[in-house]
Amino acid sequence: MYRSHKNGELRIENVNEEVTLCGWVQKSRDLGGLTFVDIRDRYGITQLVFNMETNAELCKKARTLGREYVIQATGKVIERESKNKNNPTGEIEITITDLTVLKEAKLPPFTIEDDTDGGDELRMKYRFLDLRRNPLKNNLILRNKIGLETRKYLDSLEFIEIETPYLIKSTPEGARDFVVPSRMNEGEFYALPQSPQTFKQLLMVSGYDRYYQIVKCFRDEDLRADRQPEFTQIDCEMAFVEQEDIIQTFEGLIKHLFSHVKGLEFPEAFPRMTYDKCMEIYGSDKPDIRFDMKFNELNDIVKDKGFAIFDDAELILGITAEGCAGYSRKQLDKLTKWVQRPQVGAKGMIYVKCNEDGSYKSSVDKFYNQEELAKWATKCNAKAGDLILVLSGATDKVRSQMNDLRLHMGTELGLRDPQVFKPLWVLDFPLLEWDEETERFHAMHHPFTAPKPEDMEMIDSDPGKVRANAYDLAINGVEVGGGSIRIHDRAVQARMFDLLGFTKEEAEAQFGFLMNAFEYGAPPHGGLAFGFDRICSIFGGTDSIRDFIAFPKNNSGRDVMIDAPSPVDETQLKELSLKVTV
Amino acid sequence: MYRSHKNGELRIENVNEEVTLCGWVQKSRDLGGLTFVDIRDRYGITQLVFNMETNAELCKKARTLGREYVIQATGKVIERESKNKNNPTGEIEITITDLTVLKEAKLPPFTIEDDTDGGDELRMKYRFLDLRRNPLKNNLILRNKIGLETRKYLDSLEFIEIETPYLIKSTPEGARDFVVPSRMNEGEFYALPQSPQTFKQLLMVSGYDRYYQIVKCFRDEDLRADRQPEFTQIDCEMAFVEQEDIIQTFEGLIKHLFSHVKGLEFPEAFPRMTYDKCMEIYGSDKPDIRFDMKFNELNDIVKDKGFAIFDDAELILGITAEGCAGYSRKQLDKLTKWVQRPQVGAKGMIYVKCNEDGSYKSSVDKFYNQEELAKWATKCNAKAGDLILVLSGATDKVRSQMNDLRLHMGTELGLRDPQVFKPLWVLDFPLLEWDEETERFHAMHHPFTAPKPEDMEMIDSDPGKVRANAYDLAINGVEVGGGSIRIHDRAVQARMFDLLGFTKEEAEAQFGFLMNAFEYGAPPHGGLAFGFDRICSIFGGTDSIRDFIAFPKNNSGRDVMIDAPSPVDETQLKELSLKVTV
Repeated sequence: MYRSHKNGELRIENVNEEVTLCGWVQKSRDLGGLTFVDIRDRYGITQLVFNMETNAELCKKARTLGREYVIQATGKVIERESKNKNNPTGEIEITITDLTVLKEAKLPPFTIEDDTDGGDELRMKYRFLDLRRNPLKNNLILRNKIGLETRKYLDSLEFIEIETPYLIKSTPEGARDFVVPSRMNEGEFYALPQSPQTFKQLLMVSGYDRYYQIVKCFRDEDLRADRQPEFTQIDCEMAFVEQEDIIQTFEGLIKHLFSHVKGLEFPEAFPRMTYDKCMEIYGSDKPDIRFDMKFNELNDIVKDKGFAIFDDAELILGITAEGCAGYSRKQLDKLTKWVQRPQVGAKGMIYVKCNEDGSYKSSVDKFYNQEELAKWATKCNAKAGDLILVLSGATDKVRSQMNDLRLHMGTELGLRDPQVFKPLWVLDFPLLEWDEETERFHAMHHPFTAPKPEDMEMIDSDPGKVRANAYDLAINGVEVGGGSIRIHDRAVQARMFDLLGFTKEEAEAQFGFLMNAFEYGAPPHGGLAFGFDRICSIFGGTDSIRDFIAFPKNNSGRDVMIDAPSPVDETQLKELSLKVTV
Repeated sequence: MYRSHKNGELRIENVNEEVTLCGWVQKSRDLGGLTFVDIRDRYGITQLVFNMETNAELCKKARTLGREYVIQATGKVIERESKNKNNPTGEIEITITDLTVLKEAKLPPFTIEDDTDGGDELRMKYRFLDLRRNPLKNNLILRNKIGLETRKYLDSLEFIEIETPYLIKSTPEGARDFVVPSRMNEGEFYALPQSPQTFKQLLMVSGYDRYYQIVKCFRDEDLRADRQPEFTQIDCEMAFVEQEDIIQTFEGLIKHLFSHVKGLEFPEAFPRMTYDKCMEIYGSDKPDIRFDMKFNELNDIVKDKGFAIFDDAELILGITAEGCAGYSRKQLDKLTKWVQRPQVGAKGMIYVKCNEDGSYKSSVDKFYNQEELAKWATKCNAKAGDLILVLSGATDKVRSQMNDLRLHMGTELGLRDPQVFKPLWVLDFPLLEWDEETERFHAMHHPFTAPKPEDMEMIDSDPGKVRANAYDLAINGVEVGGGSIRIHDRAVQARMFDLLGFTKEEAEAQFGFLMNAFEYGAPPHGGLAFGFDRICSIFGGTDSIRDFIAFPKNNSGRDVMIDAPSPVDETQLKELSLKVTV
């Protein structure tokens, strides 16, 4: 054993004890005849003292220590003269009698401090150093805790964790698969799972009625800030349940996590909203309900007043920014420019200031008089001092643009506190969505989602209208999980593949094993998967999942620290019967 | 909710309760006016009763139920007339008033019973049905429990679980990698990890001094019965520790698992033995010490007596099979044939019967008289009634053959009870092993294992003699885990790669990131990995890890249920800049 204690545990009660500590040199200071060295490990920081008068040789040695040297130091715990109340070990220090340098360290390319001077790229290359910093360390500790508490909760409900395979079969449906060439089966490939979906359904057929797994999943997609080619799911499935059972069970999980990880209690049931309603009042299927600022449809009161833009629009929406009537011309211009950026794509923005004196000032005063603007205000629940922002256009587009604007205003007005958590169940998703590009239906969740029984009659006449027993959980505007009741009938599953444009042969070749399994006694079942990385980032109060993954990839899917991917030997390719064509 | 209770929970105390159960029809019997249906789920079996007299229609419906139909049945709990003490629910039955067929089932291709009539191949193809059988179900439940208890124990010691990446870099050292072509980085490949070795070492450099992960690993090797291309490790690493700390910590884990999963206590420390000693007396680095039957070297007493085979042999070993002096000629011939099989490869076998009357009868009576054979017996601790079996030849070969024979005799004599558990730490492994084929050294464990400091002086003069701070844990002759103190110094690591035949450039290209990390303050560290599948199979009392994996591959690396691997689309290959050459 190299140490008697860790660097976070010594207290005033330990005074006079002889201890040995190990860790990294955080910093050192020479003050006259004394040298102070802060030694750091995962658990904390402890101050070591070396005295030039009592032991000059040792003190000189201490003065040679560089930042991030790994040392072992033995000495006696003493009470500090000037205590540091911000550090749990700040009441004591160790007067050192023995010092060993376990390993020298080159000067790190950036400072190992909470606020570092290192840029993103440099820190990715030296991820092993970046991981020494408290913010990342705390994120990984949080992640571990969430994982443990998830297992504890699910175990208490008799869920069992069952590992499903990573080397599975490639299916062109959904996102792009990563494939793995098989040496033993020449010219054939495994795929890495995008999720354990079919396997967990097979486990339901096998009778394991409460399954879960915290499991890596893989998608070969072009990356964005919050996407990684490999990510982790809390994957769950239950048999003999209805949607309500699943919602109750996993609302319980999230409440358990909030309670045991964050100390936050949610005595009430999480609010619920249908997909249609969400789209109508928030323009998003994962609305951030930490703040109100709902959409108000103005079509009835703004049309036919000679303002062509509104007359031509399918939908005119207004939101109210509380207390913003004082926005300057410059602020409003900036906002207009913001919605006109290609990322948002609005043509323009109309505003109405509800002045403190009861009058209105709008950017369309030419077309609407005070009385008419008063109607806008009433419709938008705007009072004196508020600002109404209006967008118009085709329904889908204006909803999406207004969603962007709403979230932007929420952020601007400080209404999106990352330490406030507002979960929302979004229900009754459509089964299918029409894809303009390929001119066919895609599964909104995935092809195994069951249509609502009451909507089954529309499956031939108006498939786009069919709703599914599918549900998402959004927290603070982030989709943290989603699931559905699954199809458990061969014929319905076959019909679904048909709707999605599979030939019978394709469906059979790719998912025959599942449809086959349904014929041997499949129970009604459903489930849900949470994005583990996203839950961690939400709980941690940030947007970036990357900060909650020990070794993430960059936006080109590269691990710049180990330099992967990389070319492989010709012999290796030959064994795999492969040739690179670039 | 489809059910009020599960099929394993109703007891005599529940009599008169109205309940709803769901599950699969295990079997049904018509007895006069009554029909009994056993309904099964993960939790147990409950007997349902239908009465032709009181409800003819329902009873007729019950008589249409086939095996493995999924049903929902409602009724009243009543006390059984003839109780079944072997079933926890055997004191009650349910008199049914309502029956719903949730799903019909085709007749399964084999019986869903503890002893099934299905062959291996058929059961692999219909794995989702095989998983319904109790033996497999109990294995998966055991696996879940071992995983949970592992996490509980490690969490109690402040280990944190950190996920390491699955898409990493291919390295030609060790076993063959599975590779994953990168679409975004044309012509380049990721590799799936054979273990998280380098990442867990980086985590030590990062200061996470107690890491673990239950994690999938991948090796593209030709498969044997107890190997799978993907397998699971309990992967652990600690910093600021010596070998003894690691052994204590993980002996604690195994004791915890025995105690909490099997109810078995191990109050004593696990025995330990050096690698050299193991090879000398068991001919194996993972000896089964449930039984004695140690090797006895006979060289001194059997040479120079005119028996050329022994005179020419490098090593002559004898083992004593207790109470086997009565073996018939036929039995001995069979044993001789057994050691002569190519899998064992002995040229022949000599025996000495220690007759009950104190005389000896051997297959080499021509060369050895009674007095000489008495010396053999003394050397082999054989008493009257025992049988001595002797093999001879080159040291390595004879040890390996005698190990096979010893295990075979142990099995034959019933000395290998799968419910008796004998762990053994094997210590002081050699750092390197000489590979005749490639004429170079290979790392016995892996290239990151540290040489024993006291053996470092031989690293240039006699590298094959250098021992490592490496250790394995064997239980009942199976290596369940192994690890080592790691190199944490750039120069030593570079020397090691050099010994293993890497050029400087190769070492840098493949492991530069790790050697680089060592320069920024690497703590002394070491660790260990347990084969999770193997621990499960040992705890489950069988040899086959396949029975403890929900969806295993067959010996050609195929999942015959989903039919993977399989060919992929040309377009997919094109996106990956790949061409198949078969």
